[in-house]
Amino acid sequence: MITKSSIAHTPKSADAYAVNKETLHLRLRTAKAEVERVVLWIGDPYHWAEGGLDGGNLGGSEAHGWVGGTEVEMELEGQTDHHDHWFAEFTPPKRRTRYGFILYGKDGEKLVYGEKRVVDISDPKAQELELSNISNFFCFPYLNPRDVLDTPKWVEKTVWYQIFPERFANGRPEISPEGVEPWGSEPTAFNFMGGDLWGVLDKLDYLQDLGVNGLYFCPIFTANANHKYDTVDYYNVDPAFGGNEAFKALVKEAHKRGMRVMLDAVFNHIGDQSPLWLDVVEKGKESKYADWFWINEFPVYPDTPKDEWDFWNFNYETFANVIEMPKLNTENEECRAYLLDVARHWVEEFDIDGWRLDVANEVDHEFWRDFRRVVKGIKPDCYILGEIWHEGMAWLRGDQYDSLMNYPMTQAITDFFAQGLSDKQGFISDVSRSYMSYPRNVNKAMFNLLDSHDTSRIISLCGDNKAKAKLAYLFMFTQVGSPCIYYGGEIGMIGDRGMAYDKNRRCMIWEEENQDLEFRAFIQKLIQMRLTYPALNDASIEWVEVEDETCVAYQRGPLTFVLNNSDKEKTVLVENQPVMLSAYGYEILEL
Amino acid sequence: MITKSSIAHTPKSADAYAVNKETLHLRLRTAKAEVERVVLWIGDPYHWAEGGLDGGNLGGSEAHGWVGGTEVEMELEGQTDHHDHWFAEFTPPKRRTRYGFILYGKDGEKLVYGEKRVVDISDPKAQELELSNISNFFCFPYLNPRDVLDTPKWVEKTVWYQIFPERFANGRPEISPEGVEPWGSEPTAFNFMGGDLWGVLDKLDYLQDLGVNGLYFCPIFTANANHKYDTVDYYNVDPAFGGNEAFKALVKEAHKRGMRVMLDAVFNHIGDQSPLWLDVVEKGKESKYADWFWINEFPVYPDTPKDEWDFWNFNYETFANVIEMPKLNTENEECRAYLLDVARHWVEEFDIDGWRLDVANEVDHEFWRDFRRVVKGIKPDCYILGEIWHEGMAWLRGDQYDSLMNYPMTQAITDFFAQGLSDKQGFISDVSRSYMSYPRNVNKAMFNLLDSHDTSRIISLCGDNKAKAKLAYLFMFTQVGSPCIYYGGEIGMIGDRGMAYDKNRRCMIWEEENQDLEFRAFIQKLIQMRLTYPALNDASIEWVEVEDETCVAYQRGPLTFVLNNSDKEKTVLVENQPVMLSAYGYEILEL
Repeated sequence: MITKSSIAHTPKSADAYAVNKETLHLRLRTAKAEVERVVLWIGDPYHWAEGGLDGGNLGGSEAHGWVGGTEVEMELEGQTDHHDHWFAEFTPPKRRTRYGFILYGKDGEKLVYGEKRVVDISDPKAQELELSNISNFFCFPYLNPRDVLDTPKWVEKTVWYQIFPERFANGRPEISPEGVEPWGSEPTAFNFMGGDLWGVLDKLDYLQDLGVNGLYFCPIFTANANHKYDTVDYYNVDPAFGGNEAFKALVKEAHKRGMRVMLDAVFNHIGDQSPLWLDVVEKGKESKYADWFWINEFPVYPDTPKDEWDFWNFNYETFANVIEMPKLNTENEECRAYLLDVARHWVEEFDIDGWRLDVANEVDHEFWRDFRRVVKGIKPDCYILGEIWHEGMAWLRGDQYDSLMNYPMTQAITDFFAQGLSDKQGFISDVSRSYMSYPRNVNKAMFNLLDSHDTSRIISLCGDNKAKAKLAYLFMFTQVGSPCIYYGGEIGMIGDRGMAYDKNRRCMIWEEENQDLEFRAFIQKLIQMRLTYPALNDASIEWVEVEDETCVAYQRGPLTFVLNNSDKEKTVLVENQPVMLSAYGYEILEL
Repeated sequence: MITKSSIAHTPKSADAYAVNKETLHLRLRTAKAEVERVVLWIGDPYHWAEGGLDGGNLGGSEAHGWVGGTEVEMELEGQTDHHDHWFAEFTPPKRRTRYGFILYGKDGEKLVYGEKRVVDISDPKAQELELSNISNFFCFPYLNPRDVLDTPKWVEKTVWYQIFPERFANGRPEISPEGVEPWGSEPTAFNFMGGDLWGVLDKLDYLQDLGVNGLYFCPIFTANANHKYDTVDYYNVDPAFGGNEAFKALVKEAHKRGMRVMLDAVFNHIGDQSPLWLDVVEKGKESKYADWFWINEFPVYPDTPKDEWDFWNFNYETFANVIEMPKLNTENEECRAYLLDVARHWVEEFDIDGWRLDVANEVDHEFWRDFRRVVKGIKPDCYILGEIWHEGMAWLRGDQYDSLMNYPMTQAITDFFAQGLSDKQGFISDVSRSYMSYPRNVNKAMFNLLDSHDTSRIISLCGDNKAKAKLAYLFMFTQVGSPCIYYGGEIGMIGDRGMAYDKNRRCMIWEEENQDLEFRAFIQKLIQMRLTYPALNDASIEWVEVEDETCVAYQRGPLTFVLNNSDKEKTVLVENQPVMLSAYGYEILEL
């Protein structure tokens, strides 16, 4: 029997979306392994033998006579812990559709699932009645081109490299901040090493040789902290990073080499040393910026010793209770206009190719709608990438972002390959869920990562086992979405991230004798493979059966990947071929 | 055992929304009647014993230590065919939350359901681990006031009256169109009877006496057809309706009486006699309006006899394949600006209180976002009501409409009371679904109706059984959402709607001897009751057990309603009290 309560479809969601200006994608979820076949029943609502008033909206006895339905066989897109997921594509001739789902169970069971009811249609008369009555059917009323999320195509061919500028390369020691520590000192939350954008410019040959073609920068605007998330001046690159001059030169040179440049947009909050905030500190509610923040009480700092302050109920809203980061009021019209002008400025004046949106989920949706209109109005293929760690469909409906930092995929990979927290079945479920949570066009422009300035480095997460880290990289590089390497990851850098330490933000190691060149060659090979085989960015994944509890295999275009997530050598059968695998080893089979 | 595959929650949807600027509503769906208790586990993501980097976004072994979770007991909000629906309210102290659900089954079964996994936590160690690890939890990252759908409060206290102006009252015979037929002639798709807005003005006393306080007009702008959906001039009321002068006077007088006025916004398409379209007909692709439409081929009309035209593949896109209604290209900037100016004009210059959006679902979402900004920018409590017959959450996320024409509720009511197409259980399921498909603030401003210019009249749907129709009205008037009476419904008018006839659009009967005054008194009493008891607009419904297959009972504040949907007299027990009911009768018990 088909479990009726488990059948699910949400209209106008990742279950029903326009993948381009002509084509719809439809998905259905059923309980795992109990439905034999699903047929999408779909067509134009105005196609009636007789009647059909209002596109058949009428219910009850007035609703029958629709002859617009067409059968489209659905494919099993994937399986997660408790569900089968079904998928079909349909191109409506007149852009309009209503649709239901016909489910075939065992022993002749046949149901139709619509918006209001699940009805047994194993009896032909019931079938005739139900399939001609679209008042029970879901609706994708009109495929309006303007609503289609048009993700930048270049992202699909991009391999990213994330740079934490203070720690990547020191090109001009003379502009380093006062008290700079020797390159390679152990990082703290407060110290500086002197990295700058001239240094990045000097290293473009290195990056080009590595093969990456997208540079993603942590914040570069003038700010106090070494991470620069506490912005002081949105219009000027930090002087210690080389100022606007260095950045302009860098973008120009990167573009010359076919590399894209993405900046970090920190618009949720500002730094407490910014002139805007200092004005509020000084003038209180008389400050013209008083409403640019969320202030519960003036003066903003209590008149008591700091160690008595209650950060849980502070006088103003902050990012994460960090009082050095007052939250901006993006609902204030002037504040919003100011930030949108910043967004415009760097695209228009500096020709950047993407904005990564910091703490994107805590800023209002309306702000991001404005943001998209401004940015895409100037540069339609500018990439808008949200930092959202959880499910984020609410930001991906065409009006806000192009895609997300794919942390759920990160966790799927690290749980399995790095930390052993999931088994093979859990891993396949987690990865499959990541594929099916979003529209396929979003997935093709997804931003995949194993680690970042916000996490421990992948090799450290693997307990310093580089073979395991290689499996993680290999897996990420062969999935949908553009992969990113966190600076130094390619040469085997390690470092944990914790509340009190930032070992993941160590200085880049430039002495070749201290780099793991073998690891670098491996990463370089992955990048080449990624850019050679477009199928590695396919929006669906085909798992290949392997009778082994630690080996996973999957096919991407002409390539079959077999990964042994175990400390034991193995020989496994993959499509009747024996494949020998070393401990944490892999094989790539080409058709 | 709890069916894991049936547990469902969608973040940032009708399952998780801000009902006002402080409060969240959360819902969970489980398979019917198998979960004993559900607890919402919710709190601030930055509340950690130690660690808590990035609000606990990190997964894997780095994710534990959250101490922010609070237990909130969920109530069983309702049951539908296959599901239990759970509900809870929560006010986050700092606007931020992450949350999961703790489910209690029979025999000590205890699960936690999160964004990624369902985990058995009947073992206390497992529980400690899972409840302190929010990387599996759903996220409502920040309650941004600007994103909250702020529905107009006055709608909650409104009873609507829908007027089809050509058929309501003829105030000035001298402006009636040529060839007007005698008042009361049988309507066809083409004839005119001479109704106008001066007539409505004359009848405001009648409407006020009836008790309604909201007037919803079918289109009034200059157009050719009697229904005026084929707009010729968006800036002028049809001369046969009295022009702008009559409308201005009408709004003024209505407002004086505390009545609101809502107009029909027909922006999906235009009439083929509008100057804009005629310009395209004449000049073809040289017309400056050529891109205001969706034209596949010029000239727009084929050079062949009309009876050979292929309406399924016509030279331009239309509404519903009706070539007299060319679809407007709301993606064209000038066309969009034009229509938005129309939207502005009638609010700013004529002070209208609401826009009902015709074929709202076939126009692009971006247009409606612009529309909302324009309209709410002028008059924040202007009501924006979408004509959508199917599930419409995609238009109710705060950026587009305030609410919808609640046709699913219409169908629930007519299926049960009028047509006998559903049984008691199906009816309760259908009504409950209608309550739980949308946010509660949307439901409180929902537009409920039994019939309209687009449907058969309710008494006709009841097979001319007025007792059945009364049950339908009574039920509608005691549900959440503002009820609407289709003109003449109150005096017992009948009339079917079909493809070739419009008997539902007959002339209003003004001779008292031909009105059903007893029916009118009944409706009047319902209106008074509606406006007396705010609890009739409560956003949740409490069904009261009655051991009878045709009687339904439910409580609204101090009132308990018992409805006998059967042609037999009955005595039933309601809360241990015997209640006598006539055939299709009802009783209202007051505490």
